[in-house]
Amino acid sequence: MKLLEDKIIEYGQIKHGNVVKVDTFLNHQLDPFVVDALADEFIRLYSGSSISKILTIESSGIAIAYPVASKLGVPLVFAKKAESINLDGELYTSKVFSFTKHREYDVIVAKKFLSDKDNVLIIDDFLANGSALNALLSICTQANLHVEGIGICIEKCFQKGGEEIRSKGYRIESLAMIESIDADNQKIVYKS
Amino acid sequence: MKLLEDKIIEYGQIKHGNVVKVDTFLNHQLDPFVVDALADEFIRLYSGSSISKILTIESSGIAIAYPVASKLGVPLVFAKKAESINLDGELYTSKVFSFTKHREYDVIVAKKFLSDKDNVLIIDDFLANGSALNALLSICTQANLHVEGIGICIEKCFQKGGEEIRSKGYRIESLAMIESIDADNQKIVYKS
Repeated sequence: MKLLEDKIIEYGQIKHGNVVKVDTFLNHQLDPFVVDALADEFIRLYSGSSISKILTIESSGIAIAYPVASKLGVPLVFAKKAESINLDGELYTSKVFSFTKHREYDVIVAKKFLSDKDNVLIIDDFLANGSALNALLSICTQANLHVEGIGICIEKCFQKGGEEIRSKGYRIESLAMIESIDADNQKIVYKS
Repeated sequence: MKLLEDKIIEYGQIKHGNVVKVDTFLNHQLDPFVVDALADEFIRLYSGSSISKILTIESSGIAIAYPVASKLGVPLVFAKKAESINLDGELYTSKVFSFTKHREYDVIVAKKFLSDKDNVLIIDDFLANGSALNALLSICTQANLHVEGIGICIEKCFQKGGEEIRSKGYRIESLAMIESIDADNQKIVYKS
Protein backbone atom coordinates (compact mmCIF):
# COMPACT_ATOMS: atom_id res chain seq x y z
CA MET A 1 0.00 0.00 0.00
CA LYS A 2 1.74 3.08 -1.30
CA LEU A 3 0.46 5.51 1.35
CA LEU A 4 1.92 3.38 4.15
CA GLU A 5 5.19 2.65 2.31
CA ASP A 6 5.66 6.38 1.72
CA LYS A 7 4.90 7.25 5.36
CA ILE A 8 7.48 4.70 6.55
CA ILE A 9 10.08 6.19 4.21
CA GLU A 10 9.21 9.74 5.28
CA TYR A 11 8.86 9.27 9.04
CA GLY A 12 10.26 5.86 9.93
CA GLN A 13 13.56 5.48 11.73
CA ILE A 14 15.65 2.37 11.27
CA LYS A 15 17.52 1.25 14.34
CA HIS A 16 20.09 -1.48 14.75
CA GLY A 17 18.55 -4.77 15.83
CA ASN A 18 16.02 -4.86 12.98
CA VAL A 19 13.86 -2.13 14.51
CA VAL A 20 11.71 0.06 12.28
CA LYS A 21 10.37 2.85 14.47
CA VAL A 22 7.10 4.35 13.29
CA ASP A 23 6.05 6.08 16.47
CA THR A 24 5.29 9.33 14.63
CA PHE A 25 2.15 8.02 12.94
CA LEU A 26 1.45 4.43 13.99
CA ASN A 27 2.27 3.36 17.53
CA HIS A 28 2.88 6.19 19.98
CA GLN A 29 1.43 9.11 18.10
CA LEU A 30 -1.25 8.04 15.61
CA ASP A 31 -2.23 9.94 12.49
CA PRO A 32 -5.94 9.07 12.08
CA PHE A 33 -5.82 9.96 8.38
CA VAL A 34 -3.26 7.17 7.86
CA VAL A 35 -4.81 4.69 10.31
CA ASP A 36 -8.31 5.10 8.85
CA ALA A 37 -6.86 4.47 5.38
CA LEU A 38 -5.18 1.29 6.63
CA ALA A 39 -8.51 0.16 8.08
CA ASP A 40 -10.25 0.81 4.75
CA GLU A 41 -7.64 -1.25 2.96
CA PHE A 42 -8.02 -4.22 5.35
CA ILE A 43 -11.78 -4.05 4.82
CA ARG A 44 -11.33 -3.97 1.04
CA LEU A 45 -8.97 -6.96 1.13
CA TYR A 46 -11.42 -9.00 3.22
CA SER A 47 -14.57 -7.63 1.59
CA GLY A 48 -15.84 -11.06 0.54
CA SER A 49 -15.77 -12.38 4.10
CA SER A 50 -18.37 -12.32 6.82
CA ILE A 51 -16.28 -11.29 9.82
CA SER A 52 -17.92 -11.60 13.26
CA LYS A 53 -15.13 -10.20 15.44
CA ILE A 54 -11.83 -8.38 15.21
CA LEU A 55 -9.04 -9.69 17.45
CA THR A 56 -5.86 -7.84 18.34
CA ILE A 57 -3.36 -7.58 21.19
CA GLU A 58 -2.58 -4.64 23.44
CA SER A 59 -1.33 -2.02 23.12
CA SER A 60 -0.30 -0.89 19.69
CA GLY A 61 -2.74 -3.12 17.82
CA ILE A 62 -5.77 -1.52 19.44
CA ALA A 63 -5.96 1.81 17.62
CA ILE A 64 -5.43 0.10 14.27
CA ALA A 65 -8.00 -2.61 14.93
CA TYR A 66 -10.62 -0.21 16.31
CA PRO A 67 -11.55 1.54 13.04
CA VAL A 68 -11.73 -1.84 11.27
CA ALA A 69 -14.23 -3.04 13.89
CA SER A 70 -16.15 0.23 13.81
CA LYS A 71 -16.44 0.35 10.02
CA LEU A 72 -17.52 -3.32 9.89
CA GLY A 73 -19.89 -2.87 12.83
CA VAL A 74 -18.50 -5.86 14.75
CA PRO A 75 -16.97 -6.11 18.25
CA LEU A 76 -13.26 -5.69 18.86
CA VAL A 77 -11.57 -8.01 21.36
CA PHE A 78 -8.07 -7.23 22.48
CA ALA A 79 -5.91 -9.84 24.16
CA LYS A 80 -4.27 -8.62 27.34
CA LYS A 81 -0.69 -9.13 28.37
CA ALA A 82 -0.31 -10.21 31.97
CA GLU A 83 2.77 -11.11 33.92
CA SER A 84 1.41 -12.73 37.01
CA ILE A 85 -2.30 -12.99 37.34
CA ASN A 86 -4.52 -15.68 38.72
CA LEU A 87 -5.42 -17.57 35.59
CA ASP A 88 -8.69 -19.35 36.07
CA GLY A 89 -10.75 -21.53 33.80
CA GLU A 90 -12.59 -18.61 32.27
CA LEU A 91 -9.59 -17.51 30.22
CA TYR A 92 -7.88 -18.59 27.05
CA THR A 93 -4.16 -18.20 27.67
CA SER A 94 -1.03 -18.30 25.61
CA LYS A 95 2.57 -17.12 25.85
CA VAL A 96 4.35 -14.43 23.89
CA PHE A 97 8.01 -13.54 24.00
CA SER A 98 8.71 -9.86 23.52
CA PHE A 99 12.00 -9.36 21.68
CA THR A 100 12.01 -5.64 22.48
CA LYS A 101 11.47 -6.25 26.20
CA HIS A 102 13.36 -9.57 26.46
CA ARG A 103 10.56 -11.10 28.49
CA GLU A 104 7.82 -13.66 28.24
CA TYR A 105 4.21 -12.67 28.88
CA ASP A 106 0.98 -14.50 29.40
CA VAL A 107 -1.61 -13.40 26.90
CA ILE A 108 -5.22 -13.79 27.92
CA VAL A 109 -8.69 -13.48 26.44
CA ALA A 110 -11.83 -14.10 28.48
CA LYS A 111 -13.56 -17.19 27.10
CA LYS A 112 -16.93 -15.47 26.92
CA PHE A 113 -15.69 -13.18 24.13
CA LEU A 114 -14.66 -15.84 21.59
CA SER A 115 -16.67 -18.89 20.61
CA ASP A 116 -16.68 -21.60 17.96
CA LYS A 117 -19.28 -19.60 16.03
CA ASP A 118 -16.86 -16.74 15.40
CA ASN A 119 -15.15 -15.90 12.13
CA VAL A 120 -12.26 -13.71 13.21
CA LEU A 121 -10.02 -11.20 11.48
CA ILE A 122 -6.78 -10.64 13.41
CA ILE A 123 -5.23 -7.18 13.11
CA ASP A 124 -1.80 -6.07 14.35
CA ASP A 125 0.75 -3.38 13.62
CA PHE A 126 3.88 -5.51 13.06
CA LEU A 127 4.75 -9.03 12.00
CA ALA A 128 8.38 -10.06 12.51
CA ASN A 129 9.13 -13.30 14.37
CA GLY A 130 5.44 -13.97 14.78
CA SER A 131 5.49 -14.42 18.54
CA ALA A 132 2.45 -12.23 19.25
CA LEU A 133 0.56 -13.53 16.24
CA ASN A 134 1.21 -17.16 17.18
CA ALA A 135 -0.15 -16.43 20.66
CA LEU A 136 -3.35 -15.01 19.14
CA LEU A 137 -3.64 -17.99 16.78
CA SER A 138 -3.23 -20.37 19.72
CA ILE A 139 -6.10 -18.62 21.49
CA CYS A 140 -8.22 -18.93 18.32
CA THR A 141 -7.43 -22.65 18.20
CA GLN A 142 -8.42 -23.03 21.85
CA ALA A 143 -11.70 -21.26 21.06
CA ASN A 144 -12.20 -23.61 18.10
CA LEU A 145 -13.16 -20.66 15.91
CA HIS A 146 -12.44 -19.90 12.27
CA VAL A 147 -9.66 -17.45 11.44
CA GLU A 148 -10.74 -15.73 8.24
CA GLY A 149 -7.39 -14.04 7.96
CA ILE A 150 -4.77 -11.74 9.37
CA GLY A 151 -4.17 -8.08 8.58
CA ILE A 152 -0.73 -6.65 9.33
CA CYS A 153 0.41 -3.09 8.77
CA ILE A 154 4.14 -3.73 8.46
CA GLU A 155 5.69 -7.14 7.83
CA LYS A 156 9.44 -7.57 8.17
CA CYS A 157 9.81 -10.31 5.58
CA PHE A 158 13.45 -10.92 6.49
CA GLN A 159 12.23 -12.38 9.77
CA LYS A 160 10.57 -15.75 9.83
CA GLY A 161 7.06 -15.14 11.23
CA GLY A 162 5.15 -14.48 8.03
CA GLU A 163 6.56 -17.42 6.12
CA GLU A 164 5.98 -19.86 9.00
CA ILE A 165 2.40 -18.79 9.60
CA ARG A 166 1.48 -18.73 5.89
CA SER A 167 2.89 -22.26 5.59
CA LYS A 168 0.27 -23.39 8.11
CA GLY A 169 -2.43 -22.22 5.71
CA TYR A 170 -3.33 -18.86 7.20
CA ARG A 171 -4.08 -15.92 4.92
CA ILE A 172 -1.95 -12.89 5.84
CA GLU A 173 -2.41 -9.53 4.15
CA SER A 174 0.45 -7.13 4.97
CA LEU A 175 0.12 -3.54 3.78
CA ALA A 176 3.87 -2.84 3.72
CA MET A 177 6.27 -5.73 3.19
CA ILE A 178 9.85 -4.87 4.03
CA GLU A 179 12.43 -7.09 2.37
CA SER A 180 15.52 -5.54 3.91
CA ILE A 181 16.63 -2.60 6.01
CA ASP A 182 19.96 -0.90 6.43
CA ALA A 183 20.28 1.07 9.66
CA ASP A 184 23.61 2.65 8.73
CA ASN A 185 22.17 4.21 5.59
CA GLN A 186 18.53 4.50 6.78
CA LYS A 187 17.47 2.53 3.71
CA ILE A 188 14.38 0.37 3.31
CA VAL A 189 13.74 -2.03 0.44
CA TYR A 190 10.16 -3.20 -0.05
CA LYS A 191 9.29 -6.57 -1.49
CA SER A 192 8.29 -6.11 -5.08
CA MET B 1 -25.20 9.91 29.20
CA LYS B 2 -28.12 7.54 29.26
CA LEU B 3 -26.75 5.05 26.70
CA LEU B 4 -23.61 4.47 28.78
CA GLU B 5 -25.46 4.37 32.12
CA ASP B 6 -27.85 1.77 30.69
CA LYS B 7 -24.99 -0.35 29.28
CA ILE B 8 -23.24 -0.34 32.67
CA ILE B 9 -26.47 -1.47 34.37
CA GLU B 10 -27.06 -4.15 31.72
CA TYR B 11 -23.54 -5.55 31.32
CA GLY B 12 -21.42 -4.18 34.19
CA GLN B 13 -20.33 -6.40 37.05
CA ILE B 14 -19.65 -4.90 40.44
CA LYS B 15 -16.83 -6.55 42.36
CA HIS B 16 -15.67 -6.02 45.89
CA GLY B 17 -12.87 -3.46 46.15
CA ASN B 18 -14.81 -0.76 44.28
CA VAL B 19 -14.39 -2.46 40.91
CA VAL B 20 -16.91 -1.89 38.13
CA LYS B 21 -16.10 -4.38 35.39
CA VAL B 22 -17.23 -3.30 31.94
CA ASP B 23 -15.11 -5.68 29.87
CA THR B 24 -18.09 -6.72 27.74
CA PHE B 25 -18.31 -3.42 25.87
CA LEU B 26 -15.57 -1.02 26.98
CA ASN B 27 -12.17 -2.44 27.91
CA HIS B 28 -11.54 -6.01 26.79
CA GLN B 29 -14.26 -6.47 24.23
CA LEU B 30 -15.37 -3.17 22.69
CA ASP B 31 -18.77 -2.48 21.17
CA PRO B 32 -18.00 0.10 18.48
CA PHE B 33 -21.62 1.30 18.45
CA VAL B 34 -21.23 2.33 22.09
CA VAL B 35 -17.66 3.62 21.80
CA ASP B 36 -18.43 5.73 18.71
CA ALA B 37 -21.40 7.24 20.58
CA LEU B 38 -19.12 8.10 23.53
CA ALA B 39 -16.70 9.76 21.11
CA ASP B 40 -19.54 11.80 19.58
CA GLU B 41 -20.59 12.94 23.04
CA PHE B 42 -17.06 14.05 23.98
CA ILE B 43 -16.88 15.99 20.72
CA ARG B 44 -20.25 17.64 21.39
CA LEU B 45 -19.19 18.62 24.93
CA TYR B 46 -15.96 20.19 23.68
CA SER B 47 -17.39 21.52 20.41
CA GLY B 48 -16.44 25.14 21.15
CA SER B 49 -12.77 24.26 21.58
CA SER B 50 -9.97 24.07 19.07
CA ILE B 51 -8.28 20.83 20.08
CA SER B 52 -4.86 20.10 18.52
CA LYS B 53 -4.20 16.65 20.02
CA ILE B 54 -5.90 13.89 21.95
CA LEU B 55 -3.89 12.39 24.81
CA THR B 56 -4.61 9.09 26.53
CA ILE B 57 -2.76 6.26 28.29
CA GLU B 58 -2.37 2.64 27.28
CA SER B 59 -4.13 0.33 27.04
CA SER B 60 -7.82 0.73 27.65
CA GLY B 61 -7.90 4.44 26.86
CA ILE B 62 -6.68 3.93 23.31
CA ALA B 63 -9.79 2.55 21.62
CA ILE B 64 -11.97 5.22 23.24
CA ALA B 65 -9.62 8.05 22.34
CA TYR B 66 -9.06 6.88 18.77
CA PRO B 67 -12.52 7.71 17.37
CA VAL B 68 -12.40 11.13 19.07
CA ALA B 69 -9.10 11.86 17.30
CA SER B 70 -10.35 10.44 14.01
CA LYS B 71 -13.61 12.42 14.03
CA LEU B 72 -11.77 15.64 14.97
CA GLY B 73 -8.99 14.95 12.46
CA VAL B 74 -6.20 15.49 14.99
CA PRO B 75 -3.37 13.17 16.13
CA LEU B 76 -3.76 10.80 19.05
CA VAL B 77 -0.83 10.40 21.45
CA PHE B 78 -0.93 7.60 23.96
CA ALA B 79 1.35 7.60 26.99
CA LYS B 80 3.19 4.34 27.50
CA LYS B 81 3.62 2.49 30.74
CA ALA B 82 7.15 1.26 31.30
CA GLU B 83 8.67 -0.55 34.20
CA SER B 84 12.35 -0.36 33.50
CA ILE B 85 13.46 1.46 30.43
CA ASN B 86 16.32 3.77 29.76
CA LEU B 87 14.74 7.14 30.25
CA ASP B 88 16.62 9.74 28.31
CA GLY B 89 16.12 13.46 27.88
CA GLU B 90 13.78 13.02 24.97
CA LEU B 91 10.90 11.83 27.15
CA TYR B 92 8.38 13.39 29.46
CA THR B 93 8.00 11.02 32.40
CA SER B 94 5.68 10.65 35.32
CA LYS B 95 4.64 7.97 37.79
CA VAL B 96 1.33 6.18 38.14
CA PHE B 97 0.31 3.75 40.82
CA SER B 98 -2.00 1.01 39.61
CA PHE B 99 -4.43 0.01 42.35
CA THR B 100 -5.53 -3.07 40.42
CA LYS B 101 -1.94 -4.26 39.92
CA HIS B 102 -0.49 -2.89 43.18
CA ARG B 103 2.52 -1.53 41.38
CA GLU B 104 4.04 1.77 40.33
CA TYR B 105 4.81 2.44 36.69
CA ASP B 106 6.73 5.04 34.79
CA VAL B 107 4.56 6.74 32.22
CA ILE B 108 6.32 8.24 29.24
CA VAL B 109 5.58 10.41 26.22
CA ALA B 110 8.21 11.31 23.66
CA LYS B 111 8.83 15.05 23.86
CA LYS B 112 8.51 15.49 20.11
CA PHE B 113 4.79 14.68 20.26
CA LEU B 114 3.67 17.39 22.73
CA SER B 115 4.67 21.03 22.63
CA ASP B 116 3.68 24.34 24.23
CA LYS B 117 1.57 25.11 21.15
CA ASP B 118 -0.79 22.21 21.84
CA ASN B 119 -4.33 22.45 23.18
CA VAL B 120 -4.99 18.96 24.45
CA LEU B 121 -8.10 16.96 25.25
CA ILE B 122 -7.33 14.04 27.58
CA ILE B 123 -9.54 10.95 27.20
CA ASP B 124 -9.65 7.89 29.46
CA ASP B 125 -12.05 5.11 30.37
CA PHE B 126 -12.12 5.45 34.18
CA LEU B 127 -11.51 8.10 36.80
CA ALA B 128 -11.28 6.87 40.38
CA ASN B 129 -8.29 7.89 42.50
CA GLY B 130 -6.92 9.93 39.63
CA SER B 131 -3.47 8.32 39.58
CA ALA B 132 -3.32 7.82 35.80
CA LEU B 133 -4.93 11.19 35.09
CA ASN B 134 -2.52 13.03 37.40
CA ALA B 135 0.37 11.38 35.56
CA LEU B 136 -1.00 12.65 32.23
CA LEU B 137 -1.55 16.13 33.68
CA SER B 138 2.03 16.15 35.00
CA ILE B 139 3.26 15.36 31.48
CA CYS B 140 1.11 18.20 30.11
CA THR B 141 2.61 20.58 32.68
CA GLN B 142 6.13 19.45 31.69
CA ALA B 143 5.23 20.15 28.05
CA ASN B 144 3.90 23.57 29.08
CA LEU B 145 0.81 23.02 26.95
CA HIS B 146 -2.82 23.97 27.50
CA VAL B 147 -5.22 21.30 28.71
CA GLU B 148 -8.59 22.19 27.20
CA GLY B 149 -10.27 19.52 29.25
CA ILE B 150 -10.66 15.91 30.21
CA GLY B 151 -13.20 13.40 28.96
CA ILE B 152 -13.90 10.35 31.11
CA CYS B 153 -16.29 7.51 30.35
CA ILE B 154 -16.96 6.36 33.91
CA GLU B 155 -16.18 8.40 37.01
CA LYS B 156 -16.39 6.76 40.42
CA CYS B 157 -17.41 9.87 42.35
CA PHE B 158 -17.02 8.11 45.71
CA GLN B 159 -13.27 8.09 45.10
CA LYS B 160 -11.31 11.28 45.37
CA GLY B 161 -9.71 11.80 41.93
CA GLY B 162 -12.41 13.84 40.24
CA GLU B 163 -12.92 16.27 43.11
CA GLU B 164 -9.18 16.84 43.58
CA ILE B 165 -8.48 17.47 39.91
CA ARG B 166 -11.52 19.74 39.43
CA SER B 167 -10.38 21.77 42.45
CA LYS B 168 -7.17 22.54 40.54
CA GLY B 169 -9.28 24.20 37.86
CA TYR B 170 -9.41 21.46 35.24
CA ARG B 171 -12.62 20.84 33.31
CA ILE B 172 -13.69 17.18 33.53
CA GLU B 173 -16.64 15.82 31.59
CA SER B 174 -17.63 12.33 32.75
CA LEU B 175 -20.29 10.50 30.77
CA ALA B 176 -21.39 8.24 33.63
CA MET B 177 -20.94 9.46 37.20
CA ILE B 178 -21.30 6.71 39.77
CA GLU B 179 -22.18 7.93 43.26
CA SER B 180 -22.19 4.57 44.99
CA ILE B 181 -21.98 0.85 44.27
CA ASP B 182 -23.07 -2.18 46.23
CA ALA B 183 -21.30 -5.38 45.22
CA ASP B 184 -23.49 -7.63 47.37
CA ASN B 185 -26.65 -6.50 45.61
CA GLN B 186 -25.06 -5.58 42.24
CA LYS B 187 -26.56 -2.11 42.59
CA ILE B 188 -25.28 1.14 41.07
CA VAL B 189 -26.50 4.62 41.98
CA TYR B 190 -25.66 7.41 39.55
CA LYS B 191 -25.12 10.98 40.64
CA SER B 192 -28.25 12.94 39.86
